[in-house]
Amino acid sequence: MEERNLLVGQSGGPTVAINSSLAGVISCALKRDEIHKIYGARNGISGLLKEELVELSQVFKGEEGLDQLKYTPSMYLGSCRHKLKPFDQDQETYHKIFQLFLKYNIKYFLYIGGNDSMDTVDKLSCYAESQNYDIKIMGIPKTIDNDLMEIDHTPGFGSAAKFIATSILEMAHDTSIYNMESVLIVEIMGRNAGWLTAASVLARTTYSSAPHLIYLPEYSFSTARFVQDVKEQLKQRKQVIVAVSEGIKDKEGIYISSRSMDQDQFGHVMLSGTGKYLENLIKDTIGCKVRSIELNVLQRCASHLSSETDLSEAFLLGEKGVSFVLEGKNSQMVTMKRVSSQPYAIEIDTVAVNQVANFERKIPLKWISEDGNNVTEEMREYLMPLIVGETKIPYLNGIPQYIFCKEKSEI
Amino acid sequence: MEERNLLVGQSGGPTVAINSSLAGVISCALKRDEIHKIYGARNGISGLLKEELVELSQVFKGEEGLDQLKYTPSMYLGSCRHKLKPFDQDQETYHKIFQLFLKYNIKYFLYIGGNDSMDTVDKLSCYAESQNYDIKIMGIPKTIDNDLMEIDHTPGFGSAAKFIATSILEMAHDTSIYNMESVLIVEIMGRNAGWLTAASVLARTTYSSAPHLIYLPEYSFSTARFVQDVKEQLKQRKQVIVAVSEGIKDKEGIYISSRSMDQDQFGHVMLSGTGKYLENLIKDTIGCKVRSIELNVLQRCASHLSSETDLSEAFLLGEKGVSFVLEGKNSQMVTMKRVSSQPYAIEIDTVAVNQVANFERKIPLKWISEDGNNVTEEMREYLMPLIVGETKIPYLNGIPQYIFCKEKSEI
Repeated sequence: MEERNLLVGQSGGPTVAINSSLAGVISCALKRDEIHKIYGARNGISGLLKEELVELSQVFKGEEGLDQLKYTPSMYLGSCRHKLKPFDQDQETYHKIFQLFLKYNIKYFLYIGGNDSMDTVDKLSCYAESQNYDIKIMGIPKTIDNDLMEIDHTPGFGSAAKFIATSILEMAHDTSIYNMESVLIVEIMGRNAGWLTAASVLARTTYSSAPHLIYLPEYSFSTARFVQDVKEQLKQRKQVIVAVSEGIKDKEGIYISSRSMDQDQFGHVMLSGTGKYLENLIKDTIGCKVRSIELNVLQRCASHLSSETDLSEAFLLGEKGVSFVLEGKNSQMVTMKRVSSQPYAIEIDTVAVNQVANFERKIPLKWISEDGNNVTEEMREYLMPLIVGETKIPYLNGIPQYIFCKEKSEI
Repeated sequence: MEERNLLVGQSGGPTVAINSSLAGVISCALKRDEIHKIYGARNGISGLLKEELVELSQVFKGEEGLDQLKYTPSMYLGSCRHKLKPFDQDQETYHKIFQLFLKYNIKYFLYIGGNDSMDTVDKLSCYAESQNYDIKIMGIPKTIDNDLMEIDHTPGFGSAAKFIATSILEMAHDTSIYNMESVLIVEIMGRNAGWLTAASVLARTTYSSAPHLIYLPEYSFSTARFVQDVKEQLKQRKQVIVAVSEGIKDKEGIYISSRSMDQDQFGHVMLSGTGKYLENLIKDTIGCKVRSIELNVLQRCASHLSSETDLSEAFLLGEKGVSFVLEGKNSQMVTMKRVSSQPYAIEIDTVAVNQVANFERKIPLKWISEDGNNVTEEMREYLMPLIVGETKIPYLNGIPQYIFCKEKSEI
């Protein structure tokens, strides 16, 4: 009988949940007799084109190491940012990919990624259908940005949200100790969608209302109103904590960060970032102690603080992706629908991948407070279940025991 | 019988272990019949001078809440940076403090802090002795910087080191995914002593040698050699990760950060920091993708990743501090001596506080590699036991359940 093999790849920016989806794919595929070998493409489509494949069914034989893979940050297989051109502009690449599918008897291809990766799934599955090629192609979603359409929330987002909320609570304790006025500005990722910044609301407790101000890219930003907001807050408390999205824009739609043109010591003009711009603005207008902090890449790689809900869902989506292609589904993305927030429950389904590819989902304006400096209770209710649960990670010599692909050289 | 009460205060910069020492003080003092009431000074000596006291023996009656206090970041009682003048320059302050000691029957005073706080302990205990005043005063050490004399390592350091090592490992995973050259520069706290930056060595695993370069303030920094070091590393690997202390200096002893004079958008000249300076330098000389990250305050407040060894030792030093003052010790700091690294064992003792106050302990040059861009195996052996063990923290709604002083307004 002809071998029927499965290929899986990872693409786009890292999250702490994308390996959990990979683990779900491998775990399910190992159990299904319909699948002979499981291949992983190194660095997504880019590695596939160079025939850089890892035989995952060998590496994870007997499911050994899958637990470790589940909570390892970033991409075990590596990533790429390769966007396929339309078929008529680059037939050669399509032919090459399908020759490799043929060579390795790939009958199922699962691609774990965001917007651009879903575009790849869409293009390849359309091409396969047009050629009557026997392959089922499925997208598995991930992105810390939570900006995919047709899904309640994206794997990777909940863990990033948990890191952001916890860090802001800890920074609120940190700033509370001195009896003096201060402003702390926390810059959070998200160029066009403010989901991650909105998640800062989850830092609030019975004793802490930090962050006291929240600014999202979905609501036009006014520097004058911002200064006024901070002044108002300083009347009520000594320490003001601000959560701000890197992607806030003014009413003309221009990024605030694009105003932050500094000249560096080598004479270059450079962007110093949204947080730094606002820090200097407060220094200039209010003059109190002020500090800006970028959470930076930690928000997308701090597996040590991942949300168990997030990792479990990511794993489940990987498993379901395998089941769905075996059922014959093609050109779809695995998705989650929310059944209820209290108690929290989701349902797994699929959606046509062309409804997801290349779109961005933003925060509905009704979830932003009227004056644009806070989020509503509905927003909080939506977000809260996503950060629940802590992942048990084994430590060795004081640091987490993650896993690394042996086919790569060391890092 | 006259009441014999204990006063405790916290001072200096925050750590995640300073509340654990406070919990140790309270736990031990609650059990000792010699002590009637336990008072806490809000905001250290500054709050004491304003008679802002909290009756901790009431708040933590029956030891309830002490577990939570143990792993809560920053200072439960608040802090100050009040340095006492010598007695002959400011008799009034000394008289005021001792009047308050009299008023509240304070017979034992424990001050948890770093360098400057030990100076306060020294000055007050000398004054008390000169007046034959019946009080025993003791310092309990803390600082993330690990730069106190006469102690093997300081409470707070191990947890910061664990956060730094874990974060660098996670960032190594994060940077490894793309098949392109990149340099990541991680700026770590420590103006004069490089202990925290040296702790980045603990990020290394069997598969990751990140950070590939480590620069400490104790070794003079050459920008030319730095560029050469990075170039050498880029010959061996695609992604280079650099750990650098904020306090590196050139051979004239001038901080590298002081060269990073940028002009901001409001026309101010400002320091952009060591990491940013080196980022621009690499951009200018090598031209590859480069990013700099400041771990910033998270390294001193990320309780969610605290070292259990660190928190347990901090608690023990608090308990022992109470025992020592009850034994009649005065003008001392509780200290730790290392008995062995493998297996790790320490002994608790005391040291005259004037041997600690106002001194700084730096890294011995023999623990820095010959070319100044790495640390030795001895350094690693010294550091490793300090980050071992994970603290079990209860979470509510996805974030850690910390404790906050009810006598403060909310944050």
